[in-house]
Amino acid sequence: MPTIDPARLLADLHALRAIGTYKSGVHRPTYGADDVRSRHWLAERLTQAGLTATIDGIGNVIGLDPTPGRKLLLGSHLETQNHAGWLDGAMGVIYALEVARTLGQGIDVAGWADEEGHFGSFLGSRSYAGLLPEAEIDACKSVDDGTPLRAALETAGFAGKPRLQADLARYHGYLEAHIEQGATLEDAGQRIGIVTAIVGSHRFRIVFEGQQNHAGTTRMAVRKDAGVALIKLAAAIEDRFPKIVGPRTVWTIGRITLDPGAPSIVPGRAEMLFQFRDTDQALLFTLERELEALVEQANQGPCRVTVAHRGRSVPRQMDEGFQAAFERAAEKHAPGLHQRMPSGAGHDAQIMAERMPSGMLFVPSIGGISHHFSEDTSEADIVLGCQVFADAAAEVLALA
Amino acid sequence: MPTIDPARLLADLHALRAIGTYKSGVHRPTYGADDVRSRHWLAERLTQAGLTATIDGIGNVIGLDPTPGRKLLLGSHLETQNHAGWLDGAMGVIYALEVARTLGQGIDVAGWADEEGHFGSFLGSRSYAGLLPEAEIDACKSVDDGTPLRAALETAGFAGKPRLQADLARYHGYLEAHIEQGATLEDAGQRIGIVTAIVGSHRFRIVFEGQQNHAGTTRMAVRKDAGVALIKLAAAIEDRFPKIVGPRTVWTIGRITLDPGAPSIVPGRAEMLFQFRDTDQALLFTLERELEALVEQANQGPCRVTVAHRGRSVPRQMDEGFQAAFERAAEKHAPGLHQRMPSGAGHDAQIMAERMPSGMLFVPSIGGISHHFSEDTSEADIVLGCQVFADAAAEVLALA
Repeated sequence: MPTIDPARLLADLHALRAIGTYKSGVHRPTYGADDVRSRHWLAERLTQAGLTATIDGIGNVIGLDPTPGRKLLLGSHLETQNHAGWLDGAMGVIYALEVARTLGQGIDVAGWADEEGHFGSFLGSRSYAGLLPEAEIDACKSVDDGTPLRAALETAGFAGKPRLQADLARYHGYLEAHIEQGATLEDAGQRIGIVTAIVGSHRFRIVFEGQQNHAGTTRMAVRKDAGVALIKLAAAIEDRFPKIVGPRTVWTIGRITLDPGAPSIVPGRAEMLFQFRDTDQALLFTLERELEALVEQANQGPCRVTVAHRGRSVPRQMDEGFQAAFERAAEKHAPGLHQRMPSGAGHDAQIMAERMPSGMLFVPSIGGISHHFSEDTSEADIVLGCQVFADAAAEVLALA
Repeated sequence: MPTIDPARLLADLHALRAIGTYKSGVHRPTYGADDVRSRHWLAERLTQAGLTATIDGIGNVIGLDPTPGRKLLLGSHLETQNHAGWLDGAMGVIYALEVARTLGQGIDVAGWADEEGHFGSFLGSRSYAGLLPEAEIDACKSVDDGTPLRAALETAGFAGKPRLQADLARYHGYLEAHIEQGATLEDAGQRIGIVTAIVGSHRFRIVFEGQQNHAGTTRMAVRKDAGVALIKLAAAIEDRFPKIVGPRTVWTIGRITLDPGAPSIVPGRAEMLFQFRDTDQALLFTLERELEALVEQANQGPCRVTVAHRGRSVPRQMDEGFQAAFERAAEKHAPGLHQRMPSGAGHDAQIMAERMPSGMLFVPSIGGISHHFSEDTSEADIVLGCQVFADAAAEVLALA
């Protein structure tokens, strides 16, 4: 089996970390100046590795192996969440680069654009998978400042370039490595996670409309307090969901806004962002019906409550053969220190899995921390993960 | 009894409305350019009315009757909430001016600074009442943008001026007129409200500290979700308070913040602003003990919950003699169309009531709306209110 070069791997990870450094992490939102720099940097590295590198019309960096024969596609995303960690996405991209260099052939590398959703939902991987219509690109805007996606692509220098699309016959499948972003591996004392499935998520914006009033002069009996309506629905969700969810379901109210949000004003409008995730699609729809029932109940009160969908993603199973290949490689390099597990986070692999067999490998996150500048993984685990990833890729290519 | 000049009254109200117009309302935050303009405008009007006018070191506009003898102090505040109504504060100031002109003697007029709390708590009336220490002025900052109060006073041109303080022996007492800011009068078909007491309020900032995490990868069992802790306490308050409050108690959660407030991040910190109001001080402390008990319960959960006081104001009774004078005047001009009522909002009269007998008169707010640019009162009610206010002031001065 081929051996990766740990020093080269770590040097490239740190070179990428230097583009958009924020404290001990990185701030590299999609299509910002540092994100664009990182894409040109990767294209240059891929060229040096003997691949034919292109930055396409959505900002994907694609390195194609010019030799004949079917390929394995490896990759992850280059941009980060705002003021976030240095490994989320970046590690998977550099693993792909390192494995391409180590194996010498058979590997295409992808540095996807906007997995983190600064403008849309998995824009880069969906584009390469042929699942992103032009009309959607027209409609997307920055969630941070409202900049239209088209304008951002123009500024980034990507507008007008063609978008590359995967030739499905070319690929055995897609493999992605990623930090776990949770503490399951660390808590269990494991060093490698082999992803069985990626959860689907249903996401909602729930709006409460009441009547804004003076908090001193408006008697309780006549209030239409949108904040109270929100609190009651949120409490009903927290009361009801534990009774009907599965063992790995997660649900989150990530944002609450009361309008106008002043201490002495009865809120006339309120809003909450709510989501839940599971690997079982039927359960996701059961939970959605339960939410709708709770909202119907909430509408018996003095405020109007409405639910808007912010999106649904479908749970995706990872390829059995790829899981087995990861398991054999992990058992060789870290015997007994690996486990199969679902991914609670969304990843580009769930998009590629719609088009080709896909697999994912996790390395531990220290303290389970991610989406924060203190996100980290030990060097030993980073190196081990890449070697396991390389072995599995080599096995898939050799067996195919 | 003296007769006010309705045309002059309305003309001055509209002249003041023109300083800082915002839609059909006014945006005149304390010590902003328009607020300063309005104070110079009032000082000029007071001078024209034969009073000795001063703008003092906290921005109060004080018009002193130069004739000998004891006086009645009339007034309200000049500044507005942000993007708010044209009558809140302004109407009481112009009533005071109009009554001073109508009676010709015996009236001092005050245009208080910052009742609306852009920088502090009742800064102007507390200063004139001798209840505002210099050290507090040093510490106050703008709640909008953090500008120190000292810097704002400098920009406004008020820094370095002496602060006027009431000679308590000079005054029979203090009278203030104000819009109701609620719908009690309108709902009851009444035209004049005679305030029996001004509620006290207890105000809190409640902070929830948990652990920020990824909303997909962090299992429910290990979460320390500060948002969920907030929702549970808020729901407990909404469940418990109705069982223990008085018939006119009001309580309000005016602001909720989840930090970082992203859809896919478990909130690590949350905060809510909470307050309650009543005219019964013992009940206010009972409610505060109940809140503390609920917070103690909340601390049994995975997050740390702490309560910080944002302030307490004491309920203040209005003078019985002043109430009777208002009632006689109201019965003369609007027989059967007046009622006694508590004030749910705070007013400068609650500060002056610490130092001298005080009274308040309300006129109806259309639709109960206030703190919004659409705030309004019918011209007929504005004129009626001023005449009743003038009659009562004249009676107090004649009887004294």
